[in-house]
Amino acid sequence: MITFDHPADMRNWSDDAHRQGKRVGLVPTMGYLHQGHLSLVEIARRRADLTVASIFVNPMQFGPAEDLERYPRDEAGDRAKLEAAGVDALYMPTGANMYGPGYQTTISVAEVTSGLCGEARPIHFQGVSTVVAKLFNAVRPDVAVFGEKDYQQLATIRRMVRDLDWGIEIVGGPIVREPDGLAMSSRNVYLSPAEREAALALSRSLEQARCACRSGEVDSDVIVERVRSVVATEPLVQLEYAAVVDAESMQPVDRVGANTLLALAAQVGTTRLIDNTLLAAA
Amino acid sequence: MITFDHPADMRNWSDDAHRQGKRVGLVPTMGYLHQGHLSLVEIARRRADLTVASIFVNPMQFGPAEDLERYPRDEAGDRAKLEAAGVDALYMPTGANMYGPGYQTTISVAEVTSGLCGEARPIHFQGVSTVVAKLFNAVRPDVAVFGEKDYQQLATIRRMVRDLDWGIEIVGGPIVREPDGLAMSSRNVYLSPAEREAALALSRSLEQARCACRSGEVDSDVIVERVRSVVATEPLVQLEYAAVVDAESMQPVDRVGANTLLALAAQVGTTRLIDNTLLAAA
Repeated sequence: MITFDHPADMRNWSDDAHRQGKRVGLVPTMGYLHQGHLSLVEIARRRADLTVASIFVNPMQFGPAEDLERYPRDEAGDRAKLEAAGVDALYMPTGANMYGPGYQTTISVAEVTSGLCGEARPIHFQGVSTVVAKLFNAVRPDVAVFGEKDYQQLATIRRMVRDLDWGIEIVGGPIVREPDGLAMSSRNVYLSPAEREAALALSRSLEQARCACRSGEVDSDVIVERVRSVVATEPLVQLEYAAVVDAESMQPVDRVGANTLLALAAQVGTTRLIDNTLLAAA
Repeated sequence: MITFDHPADMRNWSDDAHRQGKRVGLVPTMGYLHQGHLSLVEIARRRADLTVASIFVNPMQFGPAEDLERYPRDEAGDRAKLEAAGVDALYMPTGANMYGPGYQTTISVAEVTSGLCGEARPIHFQGVSTVVAKLFNAVRPDVAVFGEKDYQQLATIRRMVRDLDWGIEIVGGPIVREPDGLAMSSRNVYLSPAEREAALALSRSLEQARCACRSGEVDSDVIVERVRSVVATEPLVQLEYAAVVDAESMQPVDRVGANTLLALAAQVGTTRLIDNTLLAAA
């Protein structure tokens, strides 16, 4: 596995691959990798000839009160996992190579980012869109894979790629869960044992909502109420939002339809977790 | 000369060229081509194996009170000129192929666009950055050529390309002038004979400022005053701004230095014209 820390070197490698007629796949990450990330690598490998993973903890997508400083890191462990997973190239740019002197460019995707996590994290998605654009320009992938746990992020990137004519295939990878249902996240490491246990209310609430749907419930208010009542049983979990939205536009819908997402965010102690599920009307 | 009106078709052509080891050059235009545009084509041809010109009158960069509706067009004439100039491919996307339903993505370059034309045209450069990003993603050029008449635009694109790691070489083409000094512009067609004559005060004022510099004047206020006094002799010309700025950052400088630009904008009747010159201290 070859490693690059400068966009120009990364680009040269990718251009060379393209001249050889190879398809390049990209899995962008912030490191501290778990099975969820590795499942995205697996998807990329199936859809491309050469797979690039990137690791960059992007300051631009963290708010001033957020966890940029303490975000968990494990470079040696990450390298070993990516190598074992068959990644061909690792792009791990330095901060100085990403945001040099006089940096001043940002990309905004409007409606898709306005609700849900965009309300509590106003600059978050601008930071995400911008850094992903930079990764796309450095890696020049034919296909890029993003986890569905960050579903609003996935929808934002899909919209940006379509709007800006990028011509990159964007693929979502299913949420990978711990055996007890908790969605895998690098931030789970922040949880105390009691919080870890309480956090199960999130996936449990989504499971109950899914069951209600399967039994014929299509009213968004009823579904959200179901989520709230399950989460309310855990005093350690404070629901930030639960919402039923169109899975492409991220705009609220009154009833479950063809492409509907139930998404939630919650504080568990000092840790902010998100989770979601697609809903299918019976 | 092959013509494309959809980004995916344009991209396929460019990807094919790259697989053959060819360098692709791009000259973005809004059509109604003059010698200035054709000089950019000439530069692109020298720096690339295959040259693409684009023609798209971009609604996103026009303000509500501006001249989008009456912007001059001449598709047949433009085609003939580009063909004669040796352009290999013309990218002429339809409006629907550029801004489809649900379009919502914008790119902002902050400081470079804050002054000069950015003051009178607040959404202009956001529209320019965004459409140029789309052209870059559709054409995937190795080099792109922009006219120095729109110097702030050139500086904006340079900054965007550097910030977003695009890896595209951005080349500025010198201003091409009519024999009497007027900078060539598609908008010159709006001028009445009297306005056309009066507009010469602009290039004359820049010439006098350049002479003052050559004679040792380095004080920005004095240089701007020289411009104002020349333009003031023409009642048909209303100066919007004249400013001495750093040619990379577009920020005002007190004295002429290593990379200094004198830029101006003026209303000549109902037509808004811009012009500029680099200044060199004696």
